[in-house]
Amino acid sequence: MRKELPIALSNRHVHLSEEHIKVLFGEGYELTKKKDLSQPGQFAAEEKVDLVGPKGTIKGVRVLGPARKETQVEISLTDSFKLGVKAPVRNSGDLDGSPGAKLVGPNGEVELEKGVIAAARHIHMHTDDAEEFGVKDKDIVKVKVGGERGLVFENVLVRVSPKYALEMHVDIDEGNAAGVKNGEMVELIK
Amino acid sequence: MRKELPIALSNRHVHLSEEHIKVLFGEGYELTKKKDLSQPGQFAAEEKVDLVGPKGTIKGVRVLGPARKETQVEISLTDSFKLGVKAPVRNSGDLDGSPGAKLVGPNGEVELEKGVIAAARHIHMHTDDAEEFGVKDKDIVKVKVGGERGLVFENVLVRVSPKYALEMHVDIDEGNAAGVKNGEMVELIK
Repeated sequence: MRKELPIALSNRHVHLSEEHIKVLFGEGYELTKKKDLSQPGQFAAEEKVDLVGPKGTIKGVRVLGPARKETQVEISLTDSFKLGVKAPVRNSGDLDGSPGAKLVGPNGEVELEKGVIAAARHIHMHTDDAEEFGVKDKDIVKVKVGGERGLVFENVLVRVSPKYALEMHVDIDEGNAAGVKNGEMVELIK
Repeated sequence: MRKELPIALSNRHVHLSEEHIKVLFGEGYELTKKKDLSQPGQFAAEEKVDLVGPKGTIKGVRVLGPARKETQVEISLTDSFKLGVKAPVRNSGDLDGSPGAKLVGPNGEVELEKGVIAAARHIHMHTDDAEEFGVKDKDIVKVKVGGERGLVFENVLVRVSPKYALEMHVDIDEGNAAGVKNGEMVELIK
């Protein structure tokens, strides 16, 4: 049974709806691809927005593409304290009851009513990987990270799709806490 | 055998030598106690300094007292990237080969040659606690944190002294990664 997979640290970023792209960047605007991400079809855009909360602002937050049905802002808890926005730990897309914030772009502003979350740690897996690891979609597993800041992440959600590439995603707080860098190998524990 | 102990998140802070207090705050200056910390004799001072690295500045970093033999700056890895100073993960006092940074106070500046570290996670224990937990000074243990961001910290150093009070110390990255707040109870695993 396979056990090892690469980890990646997700820095703060924003997924935008078509409607919000219009408001922030202008009518008919399309995001410009800066580079492909590890998950097929996903990309880092050239565009950035400022994120404004009641206690502070974080400038130049990267936009990821393509556009999504709903705008979603993913920040670390460190960012959360800086902004004064209490981001709940949530799975991607689970936005009900999450707080909002203000997004500022070159063409306009959006006052979000919800959508600010701290992404729950998770593993993306292709269907073939899931078979090799002996897990299935929505399983909860543990992941062990070695080294001087070694730790075992519990409550790690497995997400399986033929559209995914094998990778564990943690936020910057989690990555720094474990002392890992992008691409380091970690161990799945069932 | 006891297993539970409280955890505390250490925000970035600076311990100063007598000599550096003079330079930063003026001849004959004494730190003003703002509040006592959990470890007997240690206190948060009213004084703050700015921390300057090649890539950025962090303003208003809290000074802790009393003065120490050597100046020591404790930051998170998140801070480390912001400053552009590569803080190694070290035990308190183990400063050889660590990088420096510039400290700016109201009376002057100090260009440190060393002393910037990311404090290694550790547990302070009174001698009596150590007996109850069945551990001794310099033991390496694990600590389990519950909740939605549950994890198990490995490589946790135990420090035992009749001058210590029972408490686990982690930095802000580690505390946020585990989703814990000051005073939450965690479990020691041998």
